[in-house]
Amino acid sequence: MSLLEQTIQGVSPQDKATRAKAKSRLDTLVMPHWALGRLMDLALDIAGITRSLKPALARKTIIVMAGDHGVVEEGVSKYPREVTTQMMFNFVRGGAGINVLARLNNVRVIVVDMGVAGDLRALVETGKILSRRIAPGTRNMAKGSAMTREQAVQAIEAGIEIVNGMSDTTDVFGTGDMGIGNTTPSAAIATVITGVPANSTTGRGTGIDDRVLSHKVVVIEQALRVNRPNATDGLDVLAKVGGFEIGGIAGVILGAAARGKPVVIDGFISTAAALIAQALSPAATDYIIAAHCSAETGHKVMLKHLGKEPLLDLGMRLGEGTGAALAMNLVEAAGRVLSDVATFGEASVSGPQQ
Amino acid sequence: MSLLEQTIQGVSPQDKATRAKAKSRLDTLVMPHWALGRLMDLALDIAGITRSLKPALARKTIIVMAGDHGVVEEGVSKYPREVTTQMMFNFVRGGAGINVLARLNNVRVIVVDMGVAGDLRALVETGKILSRRIAPGTRNMAKGSAMTREQAVQAIEAGIEIVNGMSDTTDVFGTGDMGIGNTTPSAAIATVITGVPANSTTGRGTGIDDRVLSHKVVVIEQALRVNRPNATDGLDVLAKVGGFEIGGIAGVILGAAARGKPVVIDGFISTAAALIAQALSPAATDYIIAAHCSAETGHKVMLKHLGKEPLLDLGMRLGEGTGAALAMNLVEAAGRVLSDVATFGEASVSGPQQ
Repeated sequence: MSLLEQTIQGVSPQDKATRAKAKSRLDTLVMPHWALGRLMDLALDIAGITRSLKPALARKTIIVMAGDHGVVEEGVSKYPREVTTQMMFNFVRGGAGINVLARLNNVRVIVVDMGVAGDLRALVETGKILSRRIAPGTRNMAKGSAMTREQAVQAIEAGIEIVNGMSDTTDVFGTGDMGIGNTTPSAAIATVITGVPANSTTGRGTGIDDRVLSHKVVVIEQALRVNRPNATDGLDVLAKVGGFEIGGIAGVILGAAARGKPVVIDGFISTAAALIAQALSPAATDYIIAAHCSAETGHKVMLKHLGKEPLLDLGMRLGEGTGAALAMNLVEAAGRVLSDVATFGEASVSGPQQ
Repeated sequence: MSLLEQTIQGVSPQDKATRAKAKSRLDTLVMPHWALGRLMDLALDIAGITRSLKPALARKTIIVMAGDHGVVEEGVSKYPREVTTQMMFNFVRGGAGINVLARLNNVRVIVVDMGVAGDLRALVETGKILSRRIAPGTRNMAKGSAMTREQAVQAIEAGIEIVNGMSDTTDVFGTGDMGIGNTTPSAAIATVITGVPANSTTGRGTGIDDRVLSHKVVVIEQALRVNRPNATDGLDVLAKVGGFEIGGIAGVILGAAARGKPVVIDGFISTAAALIAQALSPAATDYIIAAHCSAETGHKVMLKHLGKEPLLDLGMRLGEGTGAALAMNLVEAAGRVLSDVATFGEASVSGPQQ
């Protein structure tokens, strides 16, 4: 049995008994009933995921998966392809958005080359990034499959292996992405899996104008016509219209689910990967926490299909895991509410009058 | 000149020059333009407030103002009056929602008795809470003025003095409240100042049923009829239909504004206090950051009148400063984005293609 099959078989749903115990405690916390709203809903999920009423959540790791995309040759992005490589150096120097937000919230950041086109040997050899490079970028999905089915499995298994290697030192996983052009495959995945037409799943990415946006929709429609991905087969969707970093993120989600750890997904690209993970293992959805609603068109549609309500809505559209880094503070807060707030009884405070 | 007058005169608007410099830097950060959305809008405010491009925001203090309310004798709350006193002991023991969320985000919590009905000497004498007690609860606003105009000034000045005493050791202030019955005066303030009828500003507070809710609206309408507060006179509104803790919070806001510090307001009660502060000093509004949108009916109306969009929307309705404690993490994040994220130039990353 392959690592992927094994991992999928290892995913069980949230634990109902622990959820019920958490509900009983939260119902009696020293506050008006359920007065912390969605923080308490989240606490239930965390209890069901971790099988604990005193969940450990302090050790947080965001895995930033990076890859390049053959489809950029169609002119779908505002930035040149070399930016993916340049940003890898920026991540290592600590000057990117994700570095800054992760430092604030004590989140470890692991950067992985899943298939960046440029030369990253200097970073790999010094141990500053991990290399799981499958190829120097995907092929152009407008002309054929972005990768082979074997490469799709390889990408997902890379994510699983990284999670397995870190699971003993991580309580909460988060996902992030870097890859010029990657809103294009993500929108394609959204259209295949949700059935919503490409003109409603496709957005401006890094900030393209109306003309390029129309062209981007046409390119995605062409990729879907040429490849005919099977919506019920997550590997087929990933191989035909996905990306290496998207596969890696799907692997992180499946790996976290199999290990019983919460995984906080970032924005548009991470959610496309979550749709792939969900197609492969519906039960893995139980372990996903949606960090935020991105400003990118189509993200709401994806979140709805995934069945997740995002915690934050700040008009962000950067990726890198920045939304996940912020939302991890709320995840920890929810855990602390469950474990640390006193009940009416413990606090000797009077309950409601009849 | 009184401390209140002096403080109001000491409030100047945000600094436009620093805002403009912050805008220039944020425009060139190594990400698609304004890709961190509202976090970047918030960074502009922080720059304008602190007059700094490297704002210090790590030392955070939430001041929880507590008071009792004569109007509870009308039967407007689900919980008995003694809960205010009991919760003061709970705050000191560290078992309340605000204690737990403040600990997570390294926020100092200062609890102030502004006019609690019960015996708190044990907490005051041991220095665990501050006493600025004006009276053991307000009078019943349904039958006359909740307090005298002198008491209203005294309440606000208590908040100002506390901020003045802590300003050297605090970068960001936050507000919180405790007081059984205090959604009733807060809704009354909202109706007076926004002009929106009481049946649209009044909510379920701690969880009252339909029957009590209808009665609560009637009580508020009666209080407004009996007292006829002058909407353009913040002191008159506070004295006639306010509360001691609401006055204290208004003082914290005015004090923070005069000292050039951001003040993160919590939910329904803090926002009612912010409307009083705004009526007294429109320029003070520049220093207010709205933490979250409460589930309490009428909060949206108040925030709109205040001209603030909340950062979080998690269906919370606890008060105590819990929303402020969570939002302070976003305030720090926004400051770090401004000071710590590299520009395209600093990071040697290519800009957009023409």
